[in-house]
Amino acid sequence: MSNLVEEFDAYRSKMNDRILGDDNKIIKRIFNLDTNAFSAGALDVKTKELLGLVASLVLRCDDCVKYHLKSCKDAGLTFEEVKEALSIATLVGGTIVIPHLRRAYEFWDALEKSQE
Amino acid sequence: MSNLVEEFDAYRSKMNDRILGDDNKIIKRIFNLDTNAFSAGALDVKTKELLGLVASLVLRCDDCVKYHLKSCKDAGLTFEEVKEALSIATLVGGTIVIPHLRRAYEFWDALEKSQE
Amino acid sequence: MSNLVEEFDAYRSKMNDRILGDDNKIIKRIFNLDTNAFSAGALDVKTKELLGLVASLVLRCDDCVKYHLKSCKDAGLTFEEVKEALSIATLVGGTIVIPHLRRAYEFWDALEKSQE
Amino acid sequence: MSNLVEEFDAYRSKMNDRILGDDNKIIKRIFNLDTNAFSAGALDVKTKELLGLVASLVLRCDDCVKYHLKSCKDAGLTFEEVKEALSIATLVGGTIVIPHLRRAYEFWDALEKSQE
Amino acid sequence: MSNLVEEFDAYRSKMNDRILGDDNKIIKRIFNLDTNAFSAGALDVKTKELLGLVASLVLRCDDCVKYHLKSCKDAGLTFEEVKEALSIATLVGGTIVIPHLRRAYEFWDALEKSQE
Amino acid sequence: MSNLVEEFDAYRSKMNDRILGDDNKIIKRIFNLDTNAFSAGALDVKTKELLGLVASLVLRCDDCVKYHLKSCKDAGLTFEEVKEALSIATLVGGTIVIPHLRRAYEFWDALEKSQE
Repeated sequence: MSNLVEEFDAYRSKMNDRILGDDNKIIKRIFNLDTNAFSAGALDVKTKELLGLVASLVLRCDDCVKYHLKSCKDAGLTFEEVKEALSIATLVGGTIVIPHLRRAYEFWDALEKSQE
Repeated sequence: MSNLVEEFDAYRSKMNDRILGDDNKIIKRIFNLDTNAFSAGALDVKTKELLGLVASLVLRCDDCVKYHLKSCKDAGLTFEEVKEALSIATLVGGTIVIPHLRRAYEFWDALEKSQE
Repeated sequence: MSNLVEEFDAYRSKMNDRILGDDNKIIKRIFNLDTNAFSAGALDVKTKELLGLVASLVLRCDDCVKYHLKSCKDAGLTFEEVKEALSIATLVGGTIVIPHLRRAYEFWDALEKSQE
Repeated sequence: MSNLVEEFDAYRSKMNDRILGDDNKIIKRIFNLDTNAFSAGALDVKTKELLGLVASLVLRCDDCVKYHLKSCKDAGLTFEEVKEALSIATLVGGTIVIPHLRRAYEFWDALEKSQE
Repeated sequence: MSNLVEEFDAYRSKMNDRILGDDNKIIKRIFNLDTNAFSAGALDVKTKELLGLVASLVLRCDDCVKYHLKSCKDAGLTFEEVKEALSIATLVGGTIVIPHLRRAYEFWDALEKSQE
Repeated sequence: MSNLVEEFDAYRSKMNDRILGDDNKIIKRIFNLDTNAFSAGALDVKTKELLGLVASLVLRCDDCVKYHLKSCKDAGLTFEEVKEALSIATLVGGTIVIPHLRRAYEFWDALEKSQE
């Protein structure tokens, strides 16, 4: 199941290289801002990653959810903590979020497997 | 083509078990509410399933559309009735809905095949 | 409170006249389709109005909700029936829908007052 | 400017009473879940309120943003912390969020005034 | 009716000053990017303003629509051109866009009045 | 990689035939309107295709983005022009758009390959 993680990472890296290898200033700066926005500040990295996760889930973007699940894990968040964030997103976003919640659980499990 | 139906059902069941096997109270209750909300009340099950279908299509969630198409069929709705609901959703939601409409037709056809 | 209804109707009529008095063929045809889509067919008018209401609420458009609440009432739907549709929309769309639900209840009450 | 706060609270209370005074079980339970989901658990109240705020802003619901700004303030979050959450929501949600960001700043300022 | 324009401008300026007077780097840079993205490049300003208008209308943000209507007018676009963009947005976004279309027509008329 | 293009076209054609072979008047007319709305008028075809592209990207519909990328290419737009439109959509729609931007770049590259 950890293929999920590798495939996600590989495609994301390949296409980010393709996009950033290009010369569009606006897009490059948006990518840059993304790095800055999730760095520690008044809020710590853990909190910010949870914010990114919830924003991604209520907006129902599977790839964004996967990305932030990985960052949440890398930042040391437990599944207990992640699940509470996911439950808030499901409540705020409604049952329409549930198919994305399924894929979020699946990806989290794949992340755990890939690190065994 | 009826593989579409089996794959959808299998993944949905597997991940629902995974999610509900877990201990998150909020998520469990949301799943419960879902069952209650679509039971017969002042409105009958057919009408409620059509409401769920239209909500799913205007919010452009393929999995939710598939789920409600299946429930619509199980509730005894005809494709004539389902199509009118789909057309209202396409009009309200706009042409951005059309790719989801394609997959809705494909899934309905797969449902019919799987029951031959 | 029935001012809510009058103001809504007056603005809607005025601006519809303004838009349709104009010569944009695409927009005129979309308005036309709207009339056709909600006419009785395989589904009756009551069911279609509930579909329009739920689509409007999950997409969180207050004016569209108001319009369909009025049409629901004109079609003879009871508040018991309307409330079940509203509850499905709130469940599917999530708690983000609640502020629109408040305005929906307020407008329904205004509709009732305006017909006393 | 603190009228903003009073008006928001008054309308919200009045309509919540109207809705909960009614007998729709689904809607009542959704309201209940909302209280539970934002209580302290694996995540503390401050973090959860920031999650609610970001979800509300990326989904562009002014009333939800106001509600969570108030809860953030009541939970003891500083504007420095709140602003970082707002900036993440604006980045993830795009410039389409900016009009809601304006109203968020305005409401925060009103909250501060109302507590002087 | 030109009060619509003045009120919109006044509130927008006041709150932009409030936000930019603050020290959040992410938000400041997003505002900056906005200026850059709509400057002439491979596409001219007129085309870019129409893109901004259509994006705003399908995402159903009244304030963003107003802002881009004003910029469209300042860039020398005619109402014939603007209306074709509005009709594409209404078709792609669906009838849920119509209440925002009403306010778009109203604001355009107010813009014309304010320049008489 | 040009398989991406062929698969997209084949599925789209097959399902459009399926849908239009059916007798739903509302859906047929919406498909018709789509053809009309993107024909030359006060705005030329190039501009309209860019409008369709931006609307599709901010609404995050991969299939719609693919369709309009192809139409943009057929209309003679350069990637420089297309990229500026994509960057505006990414800015307005936020970083949640980035996964769709990746697939847009990939599809554009596939379009170029398929025409070599």
